[in-house]
Amino acid sequence: MKKNYLLAPGPVQIPPEILLEMARPIIHHRTPEFEKRFKDVQDLLKELFQTNNPVITFSSSGTGAMEAAIVNTHSPGDQVLVVENGKFSERLTLISKAYGLDAHVLSVPSGEAVDPQKIKATLAENPQFSSVMLEYSETSTGTMNDIEAISKIVSASNALLIVDAITALGVVNIPCDKWKLDVVIGGSQKSLMLPPGLSFLWLSEKAWAKALKSTLPKFYFDIHEERKALEKNTTAWTPAISLINGLYVALDMMSSFGWKNLFQKNQQLMEAVHNGVSALGLKLFSKSPSVSVTAVCVPEGLDGNILVDKLKDEQGITIAGGQSELKGKIFRIGTLGWIDDGDILVFFGALEKVLLQMGYSFTPGSSLKAVQEALLKNA
Amino acid sequence: MKKNYLLAPGPVQIPPEILLEMARPIIHHRTPEFEKRFKDVQDLLKELFQTNNPVITFSSSGTGAMEAAIVNTHSPGDQVLVVENGKFSERLTLISKAYGLDAHVLSVPSGEAVDPQKIKATLAENPQFSSVMLEYSETSTGTMNDIEAISKIVSASNALLIVDAITALGVVNIPCDKWKLDVVIGGSQKSLMLPPGLSFLWLSEKAWAKALKSTLPKFYFDIHEERKALEKNTTAWTPAISLINGLYVALDMMSSFGWKNLFQKNQQLMEAVHNGVSALGLKLFSKSPSVSVTAVCVPEGLDGNILVDKLKDEQGITIAGGQSELKGKIFRIGTLGWIDDGDILVFFGALEKVLLQMGYSFTPGSSLKAVQEALLKNA
Repeated sequence: MKKNYLLAPGPVQIPPEILLEMARPIIHHRTPEFEKRFKDVQDLLKELFQTNNPVITFSSSGTGAMEAAIVNTHSPGDQVLVVENGKFSERLTLISKAYGLDAHVLSVPSGEAVDPQKIKATLAENPQFSSVMLEYSETSTGTMNDIEAISKIVSASNALLIVDAITALGVVNIPCDKWKLDVVIGGSQKSLMLPPGLSFLWLSEKAWAKALKSTLPKFYFDIHEERKALEKNTTAWTPAISLINGLYVALDMMSSFGWKNLFQKNQQLMEAVHNGVSALGLKLFSKSPSVSVTAVCVPEGLDGNILVDKLKDEQGITIAGGQSELKGKIFRIGTLGWIDDGDILVFFGALEKVLLQMGYSFTPGSSLKAVQEALLKNA
Repeated sequence: MKKNYLLAPGPVQIPPEILLEMARPIIHHRTPEFEKRFKDVQDLLKELFQTNNPVITFSSSGTGAMEAAIVNTHSPGDQVLVVENGKFSERLTLISKAYGLDAHVLSVPSGEAVDPQKIKATLAENPQFSSVMLEYSETSTGTMNDIEAISKIVSASNALLIVDAITALGVVNIPCDKWKLDVVIGGSQKSLMLPPGLSFLWLSEKAWAKALKSTLPKFYFDIHEERKALEKNTTAWTPAISLINGLYVALDMMSSFGWKNLFQKNQQLMEAVHNGVSALGLKLFSKSPSVSVTAVCVPEGLDGNILVDKLKDEQGITIAGGQSELKGKIFRIGTLGWIDDGDILVFFGALEKVLLQMGYSFTPGSSLKAVQEALLKNA
């Protein structure tokens, strides 16, 4: 009889309309039906990325598109700058090194966003960098970088700006063309409300031009093969057909709801979470909190692993704990994808129960009152 | 009101039990629930591959596992032998070349299997080849290579035997350990009755030893990362969770039906198709017909594209036409995955209708009688 709530920063809950679409009998992908569907998906992806350029869809998890972003825009020995402020940005360095790139790391303390002026200074001293890579939203610490400010700096240089937006795309406004971003990476299991298994890659004209000269080896993630296939409204390799069908429904739902409304909803949910956290006397981990995911410091003396386990096992609520050195020290709740006001109330209702059991003192109901105040703001 | 039948050599029809399993609310992948499920999947994959070695699951289509097979077992400049007898084996050459390998091609006429003695002679003259790669079932021409015979030759050499078994795995008996195969590639949308989006890779001890020395670049498809993750019953990167859940149900269904029964069923369906084809005076394209897919020559004077289109648009039956230079000249029907006696009868019933409309002369009902004779053989 217990209800389960998946409130992690991805994968997220999937609307039944999408689950049922994916449960329909499969169609062959080399047919006019699939090509029509994939054309519609393309048009909606262009809305999402706010672009006229093609958006490539890979059958892989997000890490695949991160690899694709790097191997398609570089050649052996290229010097790249990776802004590291958490576990996912570190992956950009690992991929770069795996492919023989000379990766320089601009290290930012955990829970902080990079100061755009530091990127400016680094690029001024190192005009040889062929790209700057970073996370839009660093999911491991709930931190958002100021990509708009950074894009103004990098777009004025020769370097490409490669943005891993897996947990930010569809959560906040990312006008790829307007901001002159160069490479933007997305994944299906975040704001897009799908299971994992699809990833996305968008490139600016500047990035496509570099991609033509790239000599790093690639095959499955070769964007030129995909671009050729896109002209025929299909994919180079057999696509994850059921996920593409679900993607159409997801994008159509989002587009119908309105992109601006969606970004506003996510912002308001984040503010509601912040209010609730603050009412309980808890602290945010990040100094530049992400709209997609809120990382909360576990109070002194409590074990965050136990907190996360009790929420899941006793309250049916799956959130994420901390990773690596943050294990047990923070917990993370997502405010992206198919999540609404009610979910946030359910979460804080359960969180209060668990905190009470763990001996943490606070005024019962205080977080719910604070959450509701934020939720009523635009009502 | 029209019923639709997907009888292509993959993707194949998906049983409702699997569609519904994949339509269940998603769970997070870093949880004991997912890990238990993935452990059960592992055990069943080992039954399928008839092995004690781990089987790696990638979130990608089959081409991804083909790339993984190659980049994990080679180093720059390695000389490899690719047996080409159709479009899919050519892809093995393309991937090898994309990664800077020195690919030598042993070309076999379209529709023919390679003579194992030719491989023996080639290896004797070229002991430097680090691997021999080929298709188990070349889907583009409906041709099956004699992998058991070839494995006896290659296992006695220093070379690895890399077998793309995407359309053969789960269709015919492939005892990976016993036959001393080295690398075996699988995909989800063939005998496994799933949507595309998962691929599989199995390696022998000999291949794992070579993999430790491989210096070709890789990250998303790095099997060492996956092997580490497997020890914790998970995947290195976010897996396609819904497909993994479906995979469990598919493997459980196949295992319960019995692997031997499954191989026997597929063999009988293939024989039924051959009987029907022959009764209509049509010819098989392949001299070594595959159990997974039957390629049939379109009779002189008829356009195969029209035949395939009429089957689909008027009869609701999706099969595959010919690819590249075989376009319009052959049609291909799959006998793998969730397909049974009734499907074959439905197919020939519709094929007779279409052939009649196209002016081809034959005795009406003759193919159905011939099909039924084969189907009753073991009844």
